[in-house]
Amino acid sequence: MANLAADLRHRSLPSKSDSATEQGNSVGAVPVSASDSDEDDLPVKPSKPTPPPQSSDGLDEALKDFSPRWRNWLIRGIFTWLMIFSFAVLIYLGPLALVLVTFAIQIKCFHEIITIGYIVYRSYDLPWFRTLSWYFLFASNFFFFGESMIGYFGVLLQRQDFLWPFVTYHRFISFSMYTAGLVGFVCSLVKKHYLKQFTLFGWTHVTLLLVVAQSHFIVQNVLEGLIWVLVPVSMIICNDIMAYMFGFFFGRTPLIKLSPKKTWEGFIGGAFSTILFGILLSYVLLQYDYFVCPVSYDETKGALSMDCQRSHVFLISDYTLPETLQGLLKLLRISSNTVGSQKTTISLYPFILHSISLSLFASVIGPFGGFFASGFKRAFKIKDFADTIPGHGGIMDRFDCQFLMATFVHAYHFSFIRVPNPQNIVQNVLMLKPEQQLQVFLMLQEKLLKRGILENVTTSGNL
Amino acid sequence: MANLAADLRHRSLPSKSDSATEQGNSVGAVPVSASDSDEDDLPVKPSKPTPPPQSSDGLDEALKDFSPRWRNWLIRGIFTWLMIFSFAVLIYLGPLALVLVTFAIQIKCFHEIITIGYIVYRSYDLPWFRTLSWYFLFASNFFFFGESMIGYFGVLLQRQDFLWPFVTYHRFISFSMYTAGLVGFVCSLVKKHYLKQFTLFGWTHVTLLLVVAQSHFIVQNVLEGLIWVLVPVSMIICNDIMAYMFGFFFGRTPLIKLSPKKTWEGFIGGAFSTILFGILLSYVLLQYDYFVCPVSYDETKGALSMDCQRSHVFLISDYTLPETLQGLLKLLRISSNTVGSQKTTISLYPFILHSISLSLFASVIGPFGGFFASGFKRAFKIKDFADTIPGHGGIMDRFDCQFLMATFVHAYHFSFIRVPNPQNIVQNVLMLKPEQQLQVFLMLQEKLLKRGILENVTTSGNL
Repeated sequence: MANLAADLRHRSLPSKSDSATEQGNSVGAVPVSASDSDEDDLPVKPSKPTPPPQSSDGLDEALKDFSPRWRNWLIRGIFTWLMIFSFAVLIYLGPLALVLVTFAIQIKCFHEIITIGYIVYRSYDLPWFRTLSWYFLFASNFFFFGESMIGYFGVLLQRQDFLWPFVTYHRFISFSMYTAGLVGFVCSLVKKHYLKQFTLFGWTHVTLLLVVAQSHFIVQNVLEGLIWVLVPVSMIICNDIMAYMFGFFFGRTPLIKLSPKKTWEGFIGGAFSTILFGILLSYVLLQYDYFVCPVSYDETKGALSMDCQRSHVFLISDYTLPETLQGLLKLLRISSNTVGSQKTTISLYPFILHSISLSLFASVIGPFGGFFASGFKRAFKIKDFADTIPGHGGIMDRFDCQFLMATFVHAYHFSFIRVPNPQNIVQNVLMLKPEQQLQVFLMLQEKLLKRGILENVTTSGNL
Repeated sequence: MANLAADLRHRSLPSKSDSATEQGNSVGAVPVSASDSDEDDLPVKPSKPTPPPQSSDGLDEALKDFSPRWRNWLIRGIFTWLMIFSFAVLIYLGPLALVLVTFAIQIKCFHEIITIGYIVYRSYDLPWFRTLSWYFLFASNFFFFGESMIGYFGVLLQRQDFLWPFVTYHRFISFSMYTAGLVGFVCSLVKKHYLKQFTLFGWTHVTLLLVVAQSHFIVQNVLEGLIWVLVPVSMIICNDIMAYMFGFFFGRTPLIKLSPKKTWEGFIGGAFSTILFGILLSYVLLQYDYFVCPVSYDETKGALSMDCQRSHVFLISDYTLPETLQGLLKLLRISSNTVGSQKTTISLYPFILHSISLSLFASVIGPFGGFFASGFKRAFKIKDFADTIPGHGGIMDRFDCQFLMATFVHAYHFSFIRVPNPQNIVQNVLMLKPEQQLQVFLMLQEKLLKRGILENVTTSGNL
């Protein structure tokens, strides 16, 4: 707690707005017209000429002989490895730990962005603003988390007496909670602050949309199997690191004005490394059921289980090579005088092919999440979202691309991978009233008989 | 088209911001600090002293002898009846027409709000702003509409060859469309305008959240049965009119600072009228299958159908009266010397009771939708969202409460009314591969045998 004040002094945001006030032209005033003259050409500079990166004092001391550029590089590197190590521990601890940490990260990101709004719009005296923001965060998490849980474990949860009303009336409870927040917001409106209050209402909601809603896709991906989180998260990290390394050593051609440090060399080097890394990582993880099985409830054990019959994407399949490729292989074989049976198929895990799609997104579209965040930071003239992680900035600075990636993985999985789970459908039927269960059974029997999937049935209901 | 310029002159927004510029203190500057001094005590005044309400010239001419207050009252009344009449025609035309008009209204509301953002932030020279806004509107409608259609008619749509990929990959296509918009936004960022561009990005997204997302609940309510739209929409209209009437004739005590014209007398009078009106309207509509049946696809007819077996909420049930009420009735009977069998139950349609819940929401919480809109208008110093409907303002001015109401109805229906439709579940099973269909059938058979719902079955699959 003691160095919080020092930390705040290092952060560019408050000092920027302080100096802006002295000039009688504050940050918040920019939306109107002052913005045109108020922008500078260079990447946003922090308030001190060569700012020492935020780090523990011991590390600062040990690295004092290095030039600032190398020192930054080293500190960033050390904390990168620390984060990777923590992530590995998390994976070892299992899905529940991962879900909890996702929540913690989401809350911290929300806090970072709301704090920026709080400072930019100088909302210190807005009545109820902080309380309402946290309330909306709580209400939306209640909604999204409940929807995920009901989707995956509805039948299980409904069996618990005290959870039953939450499962059955979840949408109504969520709506009531949100509406209470809205009524609270309307009641908190004070004539003097209308515009600020509505601006921050919008600010809170865009944050909820971009951070909270998307973070729940991470939770859903965890439940689909750890590989659906581990691979994409690692890809983004790999792309970040490799783009940084390639850029650091070979970077020459600037990529985009928004992020002046990004180069084409870094972009391309990052992309190739990510594809390669993605294939290798996927191949290793595919060997373990722990990573490929969705979280499910095992009725016989009475506990959550990570055993499963593997989905077809995690089982080796034969792919027929396209004819052009077959011809090419034939030519190669003739020219090298190899004799043998002509190979027209190739055996691999389908997931390896999917991993290439994921890599491509992680390295081509993923960075736009980062560009978006860069643009946002430049719009509000801040260097980082916060300075939670030494050498990296705020949590949000590291997770800007992760959220977009998680949404991509969710949409990809939902559209191309997910096969409706027969067990889930049966569970849904078992949530109905007995006479409806029988009705479904008889209707299904009739349809399947008509389609020739069933034959010779004699049934009698018992209701 | 000729009187567009004149219309614009009547609207307070442009003239307000013009005059603000002259004072060197424009509307958009308020977020910072000028706001504190820039608010006035009175309801927002239009730019002219006694503004003639917007209406067709003929109407203006005919009403020129009335005082402005009465003239406004009359014009508002005439257009209220015109809208009610159009709504009745729509109901007659059926669910498809209602869905189409919901879309039209939603697009117009989006347009009105975006235009305000466009003017407030003087975004005339922002590259791609309008195009991106419309694109995001299109993409989010594609997503929400698709989700509704797949939810209700998935099996039917999947049978059409050309629609099949849209049904199967809907979430992926929607995500790709949205991401393309996001990439477009990042690419459109221009150094000079960062802050404006991010502000309007937020503006667009909050509008999408509050208008577009909520309007799709109206569409879903239409599909659940016309009564789920007709009753709540009429309730809001009734509450609006009756609160206005009671306020006009008896209004004395101000209700809330945000809407200085609203009074407690209007609020209470509106609430009682709405409950009464809701019960009467529900009772009438309950007599017709046309209003209570959900839209479904009739396989034998090969067309959409509005016939159904009524849900239990639309069938007369016996309710046991609470004991206190029974005692009260007994006392009454004794005091009036009536002799007869003691009545302990009462017969009514369950929907009548639900209609009271809906009325209560429409008249107690519903107005907060309006207060929110009022606050928004006051924050940006505009009188109305637009002047599309003479005497009423913009479409958004009439629909502010309807969106919140539709979301309430959706959540209410989802939690308390909806019984999972056995037919839908069977259709979901039929979307699986044949071997999975058989698997579901056999699993269900086993579970139902175990639960004693089925007995004596002999089945053999044919795969």
